[in-house]
Amino acid sequence: MREMKVEREKDHGLFAFPEIGVGHPQTCMVDGIQIATGCTYGKLLVEKTGIGKLAVTLWKPGKIAVRVAMKPEFMDRLAQFEFFTYRKAGKEPSEIPDAVTNEVVDWMFAQPDEALFLVEAKPNFTYRPARGSFNKAKCVKCGEYVFERYVRQVDGQPHCLPCAGYGS
Amino acid sequence: MREMKVEREKDHGLFAFPEIGVGHPQTCMVDGIQIATGCTYGKLLVEKTGIGKLAVTLWKPGKIAVRVAMKPEFMDRLAQFEFFTYRKAGKEPSEIPDAVTNEVVDWMFAQPDEALFLVEAKPNFTYRPARGSFNKAKCVKCGEYVFERYVRQVDGQPHCLPCAGYGS
Repeated sequence: MREMKVEREKDHGLFAFPEIGVGHPQTCMVDGIQIATGCTYGKLLVEKTGIGKLAVTLWKPGKIAVRVAMKPEFMDRLAQFEFFTYRKAGKEPSEIPDAVTNEVVDWMFAQPDEALFLVEAKPNFTYRPARGSFNKAKCVKCGEYVFERYVRQVDGQPHCLPCAGYGS
Repeated sequence: MREMKVEREKDHGLFAFPEIGVGHPQTCMVDGIQIATGCTYGKLLVEKTGIGKLAVTLWKPGKIAVRVAMKPEFMDRLAQFEFFTYRKAGKEPSEIPDAVTNEVVDWMFAQPDEALFLVEAKPNFTYRPARGSFNKAKCVKCGEYVFERYVRQVDGQPHCLPCAGYGS
């Protein structure tokens, strides 16, 4: 945000593409991204790319995109903290002693940004958000509203995807 | 949460499947779901199903799942508020006068839950979260860490997906 000279997003004009996938740790960095940037999942401003890296590209239409990645050296040092010994043993975050959690959090905040992050401009980054429409129709089978993009016709009548038999 | 007798999730044991898609309004209900349930995108506890409805299924392993859907009658009344006249005209939320926003918010909070929501148990709901692993490897080309599930072999060497040529 500092590199791009953008503020926390109030509306729908800033997008975050974290490179996390599923089934790996430290994805919660994306909750920090939601809070810090205002690019929330509910506003359709954040979408994971499924590359399995701790990195994110921030993009504001009309401005250059910037990619921020956690440095491997930082990840190596991070992994040595006792917090992750608990996590690897299957302990949930709320089960880990506060002192153990605070140790790694305090250490992390004491590091300069340059120790954590590789920052690079992404001049060729492109993205086209889905075009929006308020149109909706009632599914003739279940009676629920469906936004138009997701309506399917069955015998010429509007259906939702599950009622059309296209899965739920 | 009241129907299921569950608390806001501290760790990774509650999942929310909102039925929103893209390119339609009122998806921001999912930010309310993240905040209220603790099922955040960063914790991989919320995933949209792409059906295009304002509904959500909440699931706790070992408990029955519950689906909550906005009633069509409520959506009809909601659509009549001036707030949506502004939104349909392309005004962003921050550009809409506070009084106009507060009018619909205050009205919504004054409604009983039964006016807003259809609630139904989903006894047959199943979901299997991705199995987690802390294993990771450095991509030999870019030098960045990749979690193991996303590592691809090129000439026997570990690569990230973009460096393997499998897209970015």
